[in-house]
Amino acid sequence: MSAWVLPDHIADVLPAQARLIEDYRRTLLDTARSYGYELVMPPLVEHIDSLLSGTGEALDLQTFKMVDLLSGRTLGVRADTTQQVARIDAHLLNREGVARLCYCGPVLHTRPEQPHATREPLQFGAEIYGCSGSGAELEILSLALDSLKCAHTPTERGLVADLADARIVPALLQQAPDANVDIDRLQTALISKNADALELAAQALPGAVRQQLHALLGLYGDVSVIRKARNALPALPQISQALDELQWLCDHIQRTHPDITLLIDLADAAGYAYYSGVRFALYLRGCSEALVRGGRYDEVGAVFGRNRPAVGFSLDVKALANLSTPSARPAAIAAEWREALDWRQTVRALRAGGETVIVSFPGQGVEEDTACCDRKLVEQDGQWVVQPVSAA
Amino acid sequence: MSAWVLPDHIADVLPAQARLIEDYRRTLLDTARSYGYELVMPPLVEHIDSLLSGTGEALDLQTFKMVDLLSGRTLGVRADTTQQVARIDAHLLNREGVARLCYCGPVLHTRPEQPHATREPLQFGAEIYGCSGSGAELEILSLALDSLKCAHTPTERGLVADLADARIVPALLQQAPDANVDIDRLQTALISKNADALELAAQALPGAVRQQLHALLGLYGDVSVIRKARNALPALPQISQALDELQWLCDHIQRTHPDITLLIDLADAAGYAYYSGVRFALYLRGCSEALVRGGRYDEVGAVFGRNRPAVGFSLDVKALANLSTPSARPAAIAAEWREALDWRQTVRALRAGGETVIVSFPGQGVEEDTACCDRKLVEQDGQWVVQPVSAA
Repeated sequence: MSAWVLPDHIADVLPAQARLIEDYRRTLLDTARSYGYELVMPPLVEHIDSLLSGTGEALDLQTFKMVDLLSGRTLGVRADTTQQVARIDAHLLNREGVARLCYCGPVLHTRPEQPHATREPLQFGAEIYGCSGSGAELEILSLALDSLKCAHTPTERGLVADLADARIVPALLQQAPDANVDIDRLQTALISKNADALELAAQALPGAVRQQLHALLGLYGDVSVIRKARNALPALPQISQALDELQWLCDHIQRTHPDITLLIDLADAAGYAYYSGVRFALYLRGCSEALVRGGRYDEVGAVFGRNRPAVGFSLDVKALANLSTPSARPAAIAAEWREALDWRQTVRALRAGGETVIVSFPGQGVEEDTACCDRKLVEQDGQWVVQPVSAA
Repeated sequence: MSAWVLPDHIADVLPAQARLIEDYRRTLLDTARSYGYELVMPPLVEHIDSLLSGTGEALDLQTFKMVDLLSGRTLGVRADTTQQVARIDAHLLNREGVARLCYCGPVLHTRPEQPHATREPLQFGAEIYGCSGSGAELEILSLALDSLKCAHTPTERGLVADLADARIVPALLQQAPDANVDIDRLQTALISKNADALELAAQALPGAVRQQLHALLGLYGDVSVIRKARNALPALPQISQALDELQWLCDHIQRTHPDITLLIDLADAAGYAYYSGVRFALYLRGCSEALVRGGRYDEVGAVFGRNRPAVGFSLDVKALANLSTPSARPAAIAAEWREALDWRQTVRALRAGGETVIVSFPGQGVEEDTACCDRKLVEQDGQWVVQPVSAA
């Protein structure tokens, strides 16, 4: 095999795309900063037990493992950053009030999440710790929407926000706590809206619960679904609270972001195991892959000894950049190398002012590399001046 | 062991330090761009054979390995980025003229390079491909010096540039090509300036060569060393060329950067195996750990089928940031959550203008998290205005 063949779903990012990703990275971090989110940088690798505590099997299977030569223990390369930020909130910051944190760094996946996905996403995310009210969901969803807007995501097609809630299915199942149910199989049937598979997976449950689970398959659509759910589902406290919070969130998002299409899917329970409340995903209309995923995961910090309310989202900056057309390389100034002080000062001042000045190598004249230059630095009446290349 | 204990030499970066690192990262990339260097982003992981081809044992031992579940092949997490950028130049860009490339991303080391070093440096670097003249060394060294300056490295103590050349020891040994010499042992003796160890390591060599190697131990000091070397070392073509190029580079750096102390060390042959010409390291005066390492490595692209002249440097952004005092958190504006359109527009405009606006959660009033706010958004005569907090 040639030395330059990369692993599947692993790629180099070349200059045009790299420029775009770097621009997006800065815009996303600046947007989060403008909301008061503080940047943290958790490490790429950790002991596997803290990286994967309480996150479920899906994340475990996505995580590359290797041996630490210093300790002999097993390390994991992070496949997700949320758990790490929870550790930082719980242990290092240890604040009493609200903590708003954000991050942007690579994660690695053992397998691609979609057929054409990279195994090395550049994960950007934001998290609120210490607020249990729905206002935290509203802020995090607003920041997610603004992030897409600031990153010039081509939203002409329209943005769709899919809302779900991780409390509803567990609340229904809690009515028959002793029934022997394969939760994974049940969730797969619900997500794929497969009534036959659901019938099989729910066999061990009482008739009333089976009927409620079947009702979930139809509870998909615009915000009127929340009203329908109040009739179709039992008035259990957890379910009423979930529906109240979804309704509040939808009411506010419709007012503050009237251009967003809101969809409710009460059968959706996909994603990593840590969600504990409202969940959301943002899509471009007509696309099947979510740009942003987020929600509430109050339990995520428990393993670190501090079970704080937590809400957050994450997105892949590379996937976001793939939606845009890379901009052309910024125009540069070609300059022939000199050693005179005034020449050096001129070049330094141009560069400090934001210009790109490409200097030829001594004795080589202006070389072909400067093909991307639209201007050149020339001497005129003892002064260094910038001229269009065409004026040669 | 507690879930929050990180592996040795692996650490979280908290907000104050993360802000500093992100600022440095941007400044370094912007400085490189102003010189015409294009950003590339090679992947974190590659097949071990392309990642380590021609780089020697030191880098192999520094590289974490793991199994690719998709292919069953062994992957390495990059411990250095130079080899990857050479692949990009050779295979993907495939330009005829000069290519100037830069990168900034994490690397992982199995062992820390110094007693207090991180095993996850954030490596920034720049490379020139396609120029064999000393002008490339001059430009790359100038960029390295400007990078340190732009990143506000506390250079009051003074910067020291250590220059060496990877051609000198091999040229001396080439005089006795059949002698059985342990190169690693010999280099260790030379680097540590240990005459006894050198005597043992050079036993198999003819007396004249042994004498020349011993002379190297004394060829350390200011630029006059180059002149002394011309007398102490044989006038082999490779040695003369190396000394000529070092002299040219020193002459120019002394004129363009008169504040830098230049030191020559002709016995120094440390670093990864790929260097093939001038090598340099930049230090703060009085510090034993180099901030920047670089030089010429013309052979590095050979394994990718394109043996282009190459010069470059790299540095650890985290180490650079550790030298500075983190700045205080930028002052923010506290605002109580409202839903009115004019309030939302005011907050959006403030954020778009670069301000940080921290909004309280609905129904909670302005919370303690806003302790970092020096101003607040208040309503006055039907207008939203920003006031100092002390005016409460």
